Amino acid sequence: MIILLKNNTKNDELQSLIEWLKNMGLDVHISEGAEQTLLGLIGDTSRIDTDLIQALDIVESVKRIQEPYKNANRKFHPDDSIFEVGKDNLIGGGHFQIIAGPCSVENEEQICTIAKDVKKSGATILRGGAFKPRTSPYSFQGLRQEGIRLLLLAKKETGLPIITELMDLSQLSLFDEVDVIQVGARNMQNFEMLKELGHCDKPILIKRGMSSTFQELLMSAEYVMSGGNERVILCERGIRTFETYTRNTLDISAVPVLKELSHLPVVVDPSHATGMSRMVPPMALAATAAGADGLMVEVHNDPAHALCDGPQSITPETFDKLAHQVKSLRNAMNAALEC
Amino acid sequence: MIILLKNNTKNDELQSLIEWLKNMGLDVHISEGAEQTLLGLIGDTSRIDTDLIQALDIVESVKRIQEPYKNANRKFHPDDSIFEVGKDNLIGGGHFQIIAGPCSVENEEQICTIAKDVKKSGATILRGGAFKPRTSPYSFQGLRQEGIRLLLLAKKETGLPIITELMDLSQLSLFDEVDVIQVGARNMQNFEMLKELGHCDKPILIKRGMSSTFQELLMSAEYVMSGGNERVILCERGIRTFETYTRNTLDISAVPVLKELSHLPVVVDPSHATGMSRMVPPMALAATAAGADGLMVEVHNDPAHALCDGPQSITPETFDKLAHQVKSLRNAMNAALEC
Amino acid sequence: MIILLKNNTKNDELQSLIEWLKNMGLDVHISEGAEQTLLGLIGDTSRIDTDLIQALDIVESVKRIQEPYKNANRKFHPDDSIFEVGKDNLIGGGHFQIIAGPCSVENEEQICTIAKDVKKSGATILRGGAFKPRTSPYSFQGLRQEGIRLLLLAKKETGLPIITELMDLSQLSLFDEVDVIQVGARNMQNFEMLKELGHCDKPILIKRGMSSTFQELLMSAEYVMSGGNERVILCERGIRTFETYTRNTLDISAVPVLKELSHLPVVVDPSHATGMSRMVPPMALAATAAGADGLMVEVHNDPAHALCDGPQSITPETFDKLAHQVKSLRNAMNAALEC
Amino acid sequence: MIILLKNNTKNDELQSLIEWLKNMGLDVHISEGAEQTLLGLIGDTSRIDTDLIQALDIVESVKRIQEPYKNANRKFHPDDSIFEVGKDNLIGGGHFQIIAGPCSVENEEQICTIAKDVKKSGATILRGGAFKPRTSPYSFQGLRQEGIRLLLLAKKETGLPIITELMDLSQLSLFDEVDVIQVGARNMQNFEMLKELGHCDKPILIKRGMSSTFQELLMSAEYVMSGGNERVILCERGIRTFETYTRNTLDISAVPVLKELSHLPVVVDPSHATGMSRMVPPMALAATAAGADGLMVEVHNDPAHALCDGPQSITPETFDKLAHQVKSLRNAMNAALEC
Repeated sequence: MIILLKNNTKNDELQSLIEWLKNMGLDVHISEGAEQTLLGLIGDTSRIDTDLIQALDIVESVKRIQEPYKNANRKFHPDDSIFEVGKDNLIGGGHFQIIAGPCSVENEEQICTIAKDVKKSGATILRGGAFKPRTSPYSFQGLRQEGIRLLLLAKKETGLPIITELMDLSQLSLFDEVDVIQVGARNMQNFEMLKELGHCDKPILIKRGMSSTFQELLMSAEYVMSGGNERVILCERGIRTFETYTRNTLDISAVPVLKELSHLPVVVDPSHATGMSRMVPPMALAATAAGADGLMVEVHNDPAHALCDGPQSITPETFDKLAHQVKSLRNAMNAALEC
Repeated sequence: MIILLKNNTKNDELQSLIEWLKNMGLDVHISEGAEQTLLGLIGDTSRIDTDLIQALDIVESVKRIQEPYKNANRKFHPDDSIFEVGKDNLIGGGHFQIIAGPCSVENEEQICTIAKDVKKSGATILRGGAFKPRTSPYSFQGLRQEGIRLLLLAKKETGLPIITELMDLSQLSLFDEVDVIQVGARNMQNFEMLKELGHCDKPILIKRGMSSTFQELLMSAEYVMSGGNERVILCERGIRTFETYTRNTLDISAVPVLKELSHLPVVVDPSHATGMSRMVPPMALAATAAGADGLMVEVHNDPAHALCDGPQSITPETFDKLAHQVKSLRNAMNAALEC
Repeated sequence: MIILLKNNTKNDELQSLIEWLKNMGLDVHISEGAEQTLLGLIGDTSRIDTDLIQALDIVESVKRIQEPYKNANRKFHPDDSIFEVGKDNLIGGGHFQIIAGPCSVENEEQICTIAKDVKKSGATILRGGAFKPRTSPYSFQGLRQEGIRLLLLAKKETGLPIITELMDLSQLSLFDEVDVIQVGARNMQNFEMLKELGHCDKPILIKRGMSSTFQELLMSAEYVMSGGNERVILCERGIRTFETYTRNTLDISAVPVLKELSHLPVVVDPSHATGMSRMVPPMALAATAAGADGLMVEVHNDPAHALCDGPQSITPETFDKLAHQVKSLRNAMNAALEC
Repeated sequence: MIILLKNNTKNDELQSLIEWLKNMGLDVHISEGAEQTLLGLIGDTSRIDTDLIQALDIVESVKRIQEPYKNANRKFHPDDSIFEVGKDNLIGGGHFQIIAGPCSVENEEQICTIAKDVKKSGATILRGGAFKPRTSPYSFQGLRQEGIRLLLLAKKETGLPIITELMDLSQLSLFDEVDVIQVGARNMQNFEMLKELGHCDKPILIKRGMSSTFQELLMSAEYVMSGGNERVILCERGIRTFETYTRNTLDISAVPVLKELSHLPVVVDPSHATGMSRMVPPMALAATAAGADGLMVEVHNDPAHALCDGPQSITPETFDKLAHQVKSLRNAMNAALEC
């Protein structure tokens, strides 16, 4: 961390700042120039609140050089995190997961049929929304408790572990048998929820908020991890930009960037990002080629009559084809790496 | 609402769509062209889920022409909403409120001193954070329950109504004596919270999310209003753009736009938007000149040692000067309108 | 195109608008409702200025349903455009080009060495900047005329066709022997330049502006094509978003979107988008997997001492490896498609 | 400027970097820590290319602490720049200009009538487009040379100085009698044009690009100023964000920010930013209250039939009212400051 001091700093104020920083366990290096004085802080600055320092009278600006997250930081955990998402189902470090299923759980037949279909094609985790965040109060809000019950039925029938979204902490007790808890993009900075999930004994998939930076996503992971739960999966699902042709802009650079900054697995959801089913296969392939640890894809056996987000769901037939292309592509990439 | 059909639509599918739309209470007007067929829907389309229609095989695209919100819509409530925020304290329709106070409540002396100071300068509502949403788990998270107790003390001493932020529904019971509940930018789409606040007998101030459109903000207001609570205040606090010199970009056009689309009062928070105390006065004046119904300003008697967001807080002296300038400006504008 | 009329439209004004639209060669379908009247325009609306109609007193809003571009529109040219970029070198319709070379031409040895290196690895077009757009007047501005001379030398030595950027029309006479003219992101809406290039007998590669929509990029292509030059290549190179970790956000969805809307070839430049050489290989592979018609990659034999944009250039060794991975990936994709 | 070195830097490489930096006239302060070494550079770093340093093998990151512009920088010119824009017409340092006129010059009667109207209401400079940048090749492109002739006629009749946009350097000879040359948002980074205008003996008004940062705008001003022309006016006209209700988002914080960073005058164009005439008065008042040195407003005597951008033009009647409100507001602000 670098502190640039104002020109007219008094020596006693400077000394008292240096004293305070040293008490925080930091080495302080002073660079005095004709025009300006700099302090270089060396040590663990992740627990320093830059706002506090910025607010001091004698400080002109503060720049962080080290990242403000520690548990999620690859610097302190050079190896990829690898952990179970459902029994015997690993993610991270070369283990790839395909999460597939409908946007919303609608009824028993729907969820069980899709679960069997996607399993046959190669999906390894079943997704399905029970609690649905909808922009309009007049839109379908999900089957809620009943949706979770149906997901558990489909899990029983197919053996697939399940992932579904938690919208409010009051729903948490319903998630006992859910394998992975999803924190939606709109809740990425619901800090009370993140704190509570830090005490939870399940993997947590956190979707990047629509206008959240990579660092903010990692800070949200840090909230969970600092509570003791180290099994966090990061999910890129598109960011909001000026371009409106696609619903959001899928930021595929999230894959190499997040994997460089962090040891956590990174998956990509091409369905919500684009909002158009015909864009799902090319973007899923792109994410795979960029090195993602998994995909999260919406599949509906009747997208035209889905109760929500139909336009972005692909059919089981398209999913089957896509799953094979993903496999071929991963094989080709692995072979090319070995050459 | 306009539905553009695909070129090769079969007549029976078209008829069945038209039938369905008529059953939803809409008039359907058909424009058949050599190349394309359009359906024009006339009537109340606010409860129609465009995603559902978009998903139909025969539909190429759907465009909404009417707004998807009704309770918040000025078309159906041409007059400005005017309501009490604290006893005998009106907002809307020419009634202007100045909300002031510290980012966080820190201790009794701090909150009571600031409350007295800002009241003397002309503030009409006291703000202060008890539960604080912070990006880092290592930053100060607010005094929480104790913070609310101190705010109520300051209310008792000064008579100022108070506003503070609710971060999770589990905290709601602590807000009984709070006059206005604030929904923060990060919770603007916490739909479970918005639904619950629809059953609450207090004004709700909703901050625009960092990447939320005007329409999404109005949809969030609609969530509260559709539950029965019509006292919603909209708050512009800056949006996230590519520009990083200011923390966010304060979108002052929110004032005339939201007042055109809706009858609800609109206030502006220049402190969070810019993140720099020296930008607060010019932006507060700009918001006033644009026709805002109020301002929300952070004031701290010791910004350099504030426990959070110090850099964006102004001193009581600066606030006093600003409050007078705002008053002069409003007088000049009212006089100019009368000419 | 849909025109929504204001509520209180007088009949004679309506008739005169309809008359005018019919004179523009359009079919006009009227949908009269209790509350609002709509006009549906069917026919070629690409030459209609929506601003003009929007400005009429009786009009509430205008929405385009058809695209405002015609020459670049896949609807009117269903097959992929395929054309030569340099002798016997095709792009589009399955023909893939790898454009490689340094950001700036620095001297004869540099450009000739790199040209030979990238050719050996599989590059099919040589890139190199002679005129450089630099944010600061104090940064290196390119070798200019001398840079073009050196590029032509490298072309002679290797047989590779060359592409380089035109920054101002006054430089055009120097581009006689250049094979492909590049319009940079900052000049994407330099309409005087685009018009002139419409009369040019060379392929034009247009980079998407940092904040340009897909439609605006296609309108810029339309400027060139409406002048008679149909050989336009579209290039995605990253857009400006709130995320600052990468220099820009590479919008890989540009590939499937632009190929859906247009018949023109689409290439991707991962170097400028990310600004970090270590992000170039994963993003190049992602663009290939998404179906791009080519890549544009910065390669420098000494990135650490490049005169501009060194941090985003990869070495010839990294390029060689990348070119092989791209080839493997394309083979796997082609094989998977045949299954 | 701060340089953070990689962990394993060899001493001889470090010494050679330090030597090089000293040769550039900088003081170099070294902070060696257990984990990392920092170099603090003190002196004039505006001519240092950070890309070059970033590219060095031993460098992990570079952060600028001082601004990369010098002529435009308030630090080196603490007093507001004040200069003539037309004879006896000052801008800056409390001198306020109202620039008004049509988007496009259409014919003699139109431009002369509007010129007289806006002059009577208090406008001090006449604007009017002769060369028009239009997204579509099929839209009206301006009267071009003839437009300039008509503007000069209107100048002769009213005595108002004129401002109009230069779209390409080849048009420059037509601008001899134009008082202020406008560089449009799309040309803000047309560096060849900016360099040439540095040798021009006229004030240059530079519009902020739709996705340009404050610093980039100041760098474009620096291009002109480094050529010797110090009379640059900065113009905020809205930036591109995710919000599409307004055409662009008018960033009024540009006024206090640019005036803090630079001594150059700052004007605001509310017409292009919002794209809606009814938003022009509130946003013009907001810009004035924020401390702008002038306004640039589109006025058309027949907005409904304007050949371009009609929807954003206000009528002479509305302009007359607005000009009076602006005057009242400025009087009230000046009075409040004196108290």
